Amino acid sequence: MQHVYFDNAATSWPKPPGVAEAMLECVKDYSANPGRGSHTMAVRASRVLFETRKSLAKLFHVRNPVDISFALNTTMALNQAIKGWVRPGDHVVCTALEHNSVRRPLEFLKATQGVKVSYIETDLAGRLMLSTLEDTLQPETRLVVCNHSSNLLGSILPMEEISELIKRKSPHAKLLVDAAQSAGVIPIDVEAMGIDMLAFPGHKGLLGPQGTGGLYLHPEIIMEPLMHGGTGSQSEAIEQPTVRPDRYEAGTLNTPGIAGLNAGVKFVLEQSVEQIHTHEWGLTQRFMEGLSRLDKVQLLGPELGQVRTGIVAFNLPGKDSSEVAFMLDRQYNIAVRAGYHCTPLAHQSAGTLGAGAVRAGMGYFNTAEEVDYVLESIRDIQQKG
Amino acid sequence: MQHVYFDNAATSWPKPPGVAEAMLECVKDYSANPGRGSHTMAVRASRVLFETRKSLAKLFHVRNPVDISFALNTTMALNQAIKGWVRPGDHVVCTALEHNSVRRPLEFLKATQGVKVSYIETDLAGRLMLSTLEDTLQPETRLVVCNHSSNLLGSILPMEEISELIKRKSPHAKLLVDAAQSAGVIPIDVEAMGIDMLAFPGHKGLLGPQGTGGLYLHPEIIMEPLMHGGTGSQSEAIEQPTVRPDRYEAGTLNTPGIAGLNAGVKFVLEQSVEQIHTHEWGLTQRFMEGLSRLDKVQLLGPELGQVRTGIVAFNLPGKDSSEVAFMLDRQYNIAVRAGYHCTPLAHQSAGTLGAGAVRAGMGYFNTAEEVDYVLESIRDIQQKG
Repeated sequence: MQHVYFDNAATSWPKPPGVAEAMLECVKDYSANPGRGSHTMAVRASRVLFETRKSLAKLFHVRNPVDISFALNTTMALNQAIKGWVRPGDHVVCTALEHNSVRRPLEFLKATQGVKVSYIETDLAGRLMLSTLEDTLQPETRLVVCNHSSNLLGSILPMEEISELIKRKSPHAKLLVDAAQSAGVIPIDVEAMGIDMLAFPGHKGLLGPQGTGGLYLHPEIIMEPLMHGGTGSQSEAIEQPTVRPDRYEAGTLNTPGIAGLNAGVKFVLEQSVEQIHTHEWGLTQRFMEGLSRLDKVQLLGPELGQVRTGIVAFNLPGKDSSEVAFMLDRQYNIAVRAGYHCTPLAHQSAGTLGAGAVRAGMGYFNTAEEVDYVLESIRDIQQKG
Repeated sequence: MQHVYFDNAATSWPKPPGVAEAMLECVKDYSANPGRGSHTMAVRASRVLFETRKSLAKLFHVRNPVDISFALNTTMALNQAIKGWVRPGDHVVCTALEHNSVRRPLEFLKATQGVKVSYIETDLAGRLMLSTLEDTLQPETRLVVCNHSSNLLGSILPMEEISELIKRKSPHAKLLVDAAQSAGVIPIDVEAMGIDMLAFPGHKGLLGPQGTGGLYLHPEIIMEPLMHGGTGSQSEAIEQPTVRPDRYEAGTLNTPGIAGLNAGVKFVLEQSVEQIHTHEWGLTQRFMEGLSRLDKVQLLGPELGQVRTGIVAFNLPGKDSSEVAFMLDRQYNIAVRAGYHCTPLAHQSAGTLGAGAVRAGMGYFNTAEEVDYVLESIRDIQQKG
């Protein structure tokens, strides 16, 4: 029986050639502390970090690679951006589609520091009404957090329009974009899109390993670091150095993971984000067409023919999403994910708060044949009752 | 020319057999999100996390593995413990030997939240006077932070005596131990030693890869997490779940790194910490004996014959520490580290604040022959002037 991996929205798999090998080479040959020693292995480790920053800067159209700092994951990058930027009593706007990695830090600041948070509802398909955003933005709003693509609905938010609206209505606000589901699969240009801060994972669309991710901060932004500690620079200073990226990278980084990430990003650059997106979009359309021919399948997110990322969430009538996912795994060797996907508000928007949803996350290495096999398997489950 | 790696105090190298292979297997075979899916690959990822927690619990004598949470590095674990536990206005005691990963978070809390920090001086060899600690502890002291072994001097602090003193003088204080230089190379028993919180790296004495580390928290401790976000559990809750380890592990973990760490910890358990310590101690004694026969070499830390970890820091008369490290690397292919090692106060204690020091960090895979080669090389540098 073939194995189909449709959980790329959580972690992409498989990784392109070179990722695991780059990690192996790092661990075996030069796993020393970057920036903390002048010896040859440490210098090589530093160079890998710099090369990876350069690759990421190219991908996101960041002028200076040092404006990108590495993080354990997107959650850490989002916590850094939110807790570093928001002051007590500030007003923050975010969408109702945000992941718990945005919602929970904001709710924490709301409960402990009097921060005011406005959640903007979307329509059932996860589309943001710009007029609602316009009405919510205040002159004193200090932060807008917005995911680039919903991790439940696959919808894509119009970053240019959002950032223009913010600049017009809330001149003191910064735009923080959660690129968990878009980095590597939709073009991102932080300058053209007016993105002030970009949090991204390494282990999803960038095709690197888990344990990697990062944060782009506009050069003019200065904030308190989430973690204070050693940086290998200005050791005698009591305060965290202001120099980038050191300020936001206390402690020893995940050098093997970052070496793997570099191989992933290079692959993405070679294939091009556009080609990756086109491939994934084709798969989602084929999958949605097939699902819509089955009996009463509830499809979440944008309609057939509309733009979306590789995510298709759905529910089968009369079946719990966890049950469907379990059967797909055990009986058909298909990996999908069920449940709430850490976005209870998005489920509220989509009308699936009680039920959750089965989420298929398609990636660049998935094929039309795999889509057909998954469709057949779902049909089989439905027929068996 | 042979290559000698004497920078194990920064990152251990090489790794034991199985570490890189475990990482490779994870990335290639089951790099899915632990705790976020019921499918087979995700279950396997969860199991590796649990197995690693169990190995670590065995090593540190932790009763319940869920009391250990994973972190990017020791710095993150220390930031979690310090910022999670200390409240505005609290009194904190730490030694003057602490790394910047302790000093900087504390100085940040001092500057922003009125926290009072007392630094306890040690003697030149890095020994803590228990009477000084006793005089500094107050009835209202809420936290004591203490490294188990100095990353500059190699001295080992008496944890049992320290924790007993704290319990007697400061009943509300918790003891946070920075095990950056001791985990895997000196026996640690959190119960017997009265350690309430233990921050440890994965990439040093535990022989795992960079990007790993963790924090043990006594079961009765509850604190605000450093990072709020998704945990795969209780998705609908606005607050971070209280269940361990989820509460302190928001976001996707570094599963490949943790798989590698498990192989490292298993190796440590097989060889035994005692045997590792004995081997490293033998090397330091040989190295110190050799250095003391050279002309006017300044040796830092405990005297010959006294207990210490694998660290020997020294200075050659009339030579800058960076220059010595650079020559050892380029001319003799020996990796050591020069500078301040992120512990400016420890340099003040040792009287080397202006000069820094060359630090040799010896590990389990180093040999007596390597020690002799490094000694010859240093003699050579001295003779050349």
